[in-house]
Amino acid sequence: MNINYPIKKQKNLNKTNYANRGMSLEKELNESNKYYRAHNIALIYKKPTPVQIVKVDYPKRQKAVIKEAYFQAPSTTDYNGIYRRKYIDFEAKEIKSKTAFPLQNIHIHQFEHLKQVLELGGITFIIVKFANLNKSFLLDGSITIELYDNYLNNGKKSISLKTFIEKGYEITDKCIYTLDYLKTVDKVYFDND
Amino acid sequence: MNINYPIKKQKNLNKTNYANRGMSLEKELNESNKYYRAHNIALIYKKPTPVQIVKVDYPKRQKAVIKEAYFQAPSTTDYNGIYRRKYIDFEAKEIKSKTAFPLQNIHIHQFEHLKQVLELGGITFIIVKFANLNKSFLLDGSITIELYDNYLNNGKKSISLKTFIEKGYEITDKCIYTLDYLKTVDKVYFDND
Repeated sequence: MNINYPIKKQKNLNKTNYANRGMSLEKELNESNKYYRAHNIALIYKKPTPVQIVKVDYPKRQKAVIKEAYFQAPSTTDYNGIYRRKYIDFEAKEIKSKTAFPLQNIHIHQFEHLKQVLELGGITFIIVKFANLNKSFLLDGSITIELYDNYLNNGKKSISLKTFIEKGYEITDKCIYTLDYLKTVDKVYFDND
Repeated sequence: MNINYPIKKQKNLNKTNYANRGMSLEKELNESNKYYRAHNIALIYKKPTPVQIVKVDYPKRQKAVIKEAYFQAPSTTDYNGIYRRKYIDFEAKEIKSKTAFPLQNIHIHQFEHLKQVLELGGITFIIVKFANLNKSFLLDGSITIELYDNYLNNGKKSISLKTFIEKGYEITDKCIYTLDYLKTVDKVYFDND
């Protein structure tokens, strides 16, 4: 844990650096979600990036080419779906820091969204991957909201690794070769079933 | 009902034709969903259209322009979210026909998706608006799946208006000025609560 390799120096020596060890979190989650769908365990999708389309060309019949478009800020979290008859909704972020997750990574709209999902009885959390430690954590939505609320009121700007270890859950299970995060969800949200 | 105005002729005389009476279904649902969110009733969003991005320019800092992208076929339905602690998932289609809804309007992936949501315990349905009749119906997912299954096996290629009237539910309530489809959901899925 907390191995302080001289990453930058190494980069020059060798194209493989420890940040790239393993897949990106997004890819891992997409693979896990594919696995869950294929095995009828859950239906969870990453929402497409919202894009504002300005100009479209039709060079050939049936093949539209978007020629001008802009990325839009997401108003919700990236992932949602159904698991064990429950609505599930979460945000996933990969960071380079080995010590803390900066809360500015979560948009205010996403924070508001998480709050509303919680109020309506859904399961919410964030998954944060510390890429350089190759460790991923699930942190419950209500804790995330509490810390974000505090951040908006001039409190701590980030969530420390320590907090993830103490209040979150490391996702250690794998489905085939990617993160089996629903095993962690089982532990956190369905333990009394 | 079934007023056979000579629509095309009228178009030339007056820019307002009866097909455009009222909003498009998508706009109606977006307004309803905004209303539900604002009143903490439900969190239901239309998923962004999936777009495959090929080329992005960065003319100015922080303002990326997508220069080449393509529309992708949706693998899921357009709408999902949470209502009364339940996962809710549906597809919405507006048609010009006054007599039947062609089932080819639903992609096979969307059909598979609806089936899986049902198996996992979610609420599924389709909303079909007969624009020229200015009537919208909710048809339960299991009925839709049955009819689609039949269509895939060389059965009927469309769902008749009669079937919508007999087996579906017309959405008659309004929230302010748009379709209050969750009132219909209440009747269909929560009547015993």
